[in-house]
Amino acid sequence: MKTAPVDPALPLVAAILLRDSCDCAECRDSSSGQRLRSITDLPADVFVSEARAVGDSVEVLFGPDGHRAVFSRAWLAGQRTPAEDDRTEDAKRLWTARDVAAGLPGQSWPRYLADDRDRETCLAALMRDGFLLLRDVPARPGTVLTVAGSMGYVRETNYGRLFDVRVEATPANLAFTGLPIAPHTDNPYRDPVPTVQLLHCLATAPEGGDSGLVDGFLAAAMLRAEDPSAFEILTRNPVTFAYRDATAELRATRPMIGVDSLGRIREIRFNNRSMQPPRPGRSGSPEQTAAFYAAYRAFAEVIGRPDLMLTFRLGPGDCVVFDNTRVLHARTGFGGAGRRHLQGCYTDLDGVASALALLRRARAAAG
Amino acid sequence: MKTAPVDPALPLVAAILLRDSCDCAECRDSSSGQRLRSITDLPADVFVSEARAVGDSVEVLFGPDGHRAVFSRAWLAGQRTPAEDDRTEDAKRLWTARDVAAGLPGQSWPRYLADDRDRETCLAALMRDGFLLLRDVPARPGTVLTVAGSMGYVRETNYGRLFDVRVEATPANLAFTGLPIAPHTDNPYRDPVPTVQLLHCLATAPEGGDSGLVDGFLAAAMLRAEDPSAFEILTRNPVTFAYRDATAELRATRPMIGVDSLGRIREIRFNNRSMQPPRPGRSGSPEQTAAFYAAYRAFAEVIGRPDLMLTFRLGPGDCVVFDNTRVLHARTGFGGAGRRHLQGCYTDLDGVASALALLRRARAAAG
Repeated sequence: MKTAPVDPALPLVAAILLRDSCDCAECRDSSSGQRLRSITDLPADVFVSEARAVGDSVEVLFGPDGHRAVFSRAWLAGQRTPAEDDRTEDAKRLWTARDVAAGLPGQSWPRYLADDRDRETCLAALMRDGFLLLRDVPARPGTVLTVAGSMGYVRETNYGRLFDVRVEATPANLAFTGLPIAPHTDNPYRDPVPTVQLLHCLATAPEGGDSGLVDGFLAAAMLRAEDPSAFEILTRNPVTFAYRDATAELRATRPMIGVDSLGRIREIRFNNRSMQPPRPGRSGSPEQTAAFYAAYRAFAEVIGRPDLMLTFRLGPGDCVVFDNTRVLHARTGFGGAGRRHLQGCYTDLDGVASALALLRRARAAAG
Repeated sequence: MKTAPVDPALPLVAAILLRDSCDCAECRDSSSGQRLRSITDLPADVFVSEARAVGDSVEVLFGPDGHRAVFSRAWLAGQRTPAEDDRTEDAKRLWTARDVAAGLPGQSWPRYLADDRDRETCLAALMRDGFLLLRDVPARPGTVLTVAGSMGYVRETNYGRLFDVRVEATPANLAFTGLPIAPHTDNPYRDPVPTVQLLHCLATAPEGGDSGLVDGFLAAAMLRAEDPSAFEILTRNPVTFAYRDATAELRATRPMIGVDSLGRIREIRFNNRSMQPPRPGRSGSPEQTAAFYAAYRAFAEVIGRPDLMLTFRLGPGDCVVFDNTRVLHARTGFGGAGRRHLQGCYTDLDGVASALALLRRARAAAG
């Protein structure tokens, strides 16, 4: 017998979704919460044969298998809100230099360590704004790994668990010179790319060596608004980034602006040092190549606008942490060989998001 | 003065690509090979003002900046071949169980260690076929980390640098029970997902616990051929995968079948245990949800075809290594609590590809 819906949300939810969402002991493992049934274990022709209100819940009887499930009204109401992807532009607060004028998001390292609420605020800023400045981090070599370990797991690469950024005699990378470095994301030639970078200052140069950050999601969104066809070209054309030295040979082919399947900006790769010129192939025309370069130039020009770049000077004990899938970093040139010394390492956003979720869970549990 | 082209490939390549490809000491750092110029440093109206043959090379004079560059004819000819992305289906050899009947790709661990050529063959198989079986790996705890270190860098997660797969009293994950596990990719709730998984067998169960592998790229390609609209639905709809225990709360939202911007299959995420039912939102209809589930069911049915699953039994000292963005793994149920014991860890494909490229480079240099 079919009955009239007992909850306004019920008819809006497909029967198969309801059946798949059942969390009774037959459908979900009580210990791990993991689903015990595969989609192919559920009847393809499942339907709601009966539904009745039970307090704040709705009990549903399914046909043809006769399975019974209980859903809270809160869960049913939640189906009206689509799942959010916290890695796309929708979940971010985009910024220009002026928006951050009131002060860089961040905290003193001892307080970050001592106070869960401060740490939660910091990690939330990293997820939402794409960066974070920790101060008073002891200027001792290796401490950057402790900072990374406080929010995730160190991603080791061919550069080591950590790398030193200072002037080298025979640099394998321009990072290890005193030259200025234009805004870029790190390691675009790696896939998976490291999603978080940390740079910890141990010593500063007498002059120059200032740091800059640009919100790449904002730059991409501006390009989309001002020159939609350039934006489209950069999302549709995979670009090869490559790096080669004595101990590594890395290559990744991905679009400069990565969007999700709904078109939302999700990942920026931008690095003039390691980007390889596109190879047109037999079917590519010079006109197509020129259009790609014009789009690339347009994006570079947006990124280079002075009002987009937040500039600051790292002093000993400062550690900047940023989302390497979104925020481009830069530095001005400097002299005084051997003076400026940063240590860097990588970690990943999934670990940061997990650490943040655990802090929120603990706070919710505490009351 | 403009001259007639001196190489048939020259007019097919856009002037801006030529200008951007110049590797003279002004344009590229001689030590690192990295580009010194940004796109915005190059004139937007660049053109080839003169070109002349010089032996096996072509010398190009650009206007309006008067820059001079030299390109080999081999490089020019190479522009006819588009860059390959070694992570998409185009670069893979797809397989069914029968294709592997002649023997699993792999090697004895001591030979893999001792012989560069054998190691190269093994890593090439991992990149091309998506998996590899190493035998005679000492069945001592922790050795899986040595195997991972031979081809890349260990990706640490909340499960540790390595994890034990055996029956536990209060399992946080069904992997740690004796239950059968349907074909799946690991950690789809992580982003970046670990791209390579290793499982090293220390002890076997008296019965059951057999391993299975399915080529997810082949399954996706079959779905595309048989049911294009189901394929399309799975590439276009991000799905949330989630995992939660006392020490982690992970969530990633990505399509089940990830394609690149040219539509090529590039990444599979499939895991009935951690997949969250889609939340339709205000704009989603029950019909759309039902269509998504029908597509998901169709993909699950292809994956479940017996001729797709390669089955084998890991013995002590066997270590299977597979591409977790492509190959699904499964196991049959088993009894004998506490007997079967595997150790697993994760590493990444970019490190494997780099190790392989270095072996090839060394072989080419040797002659």
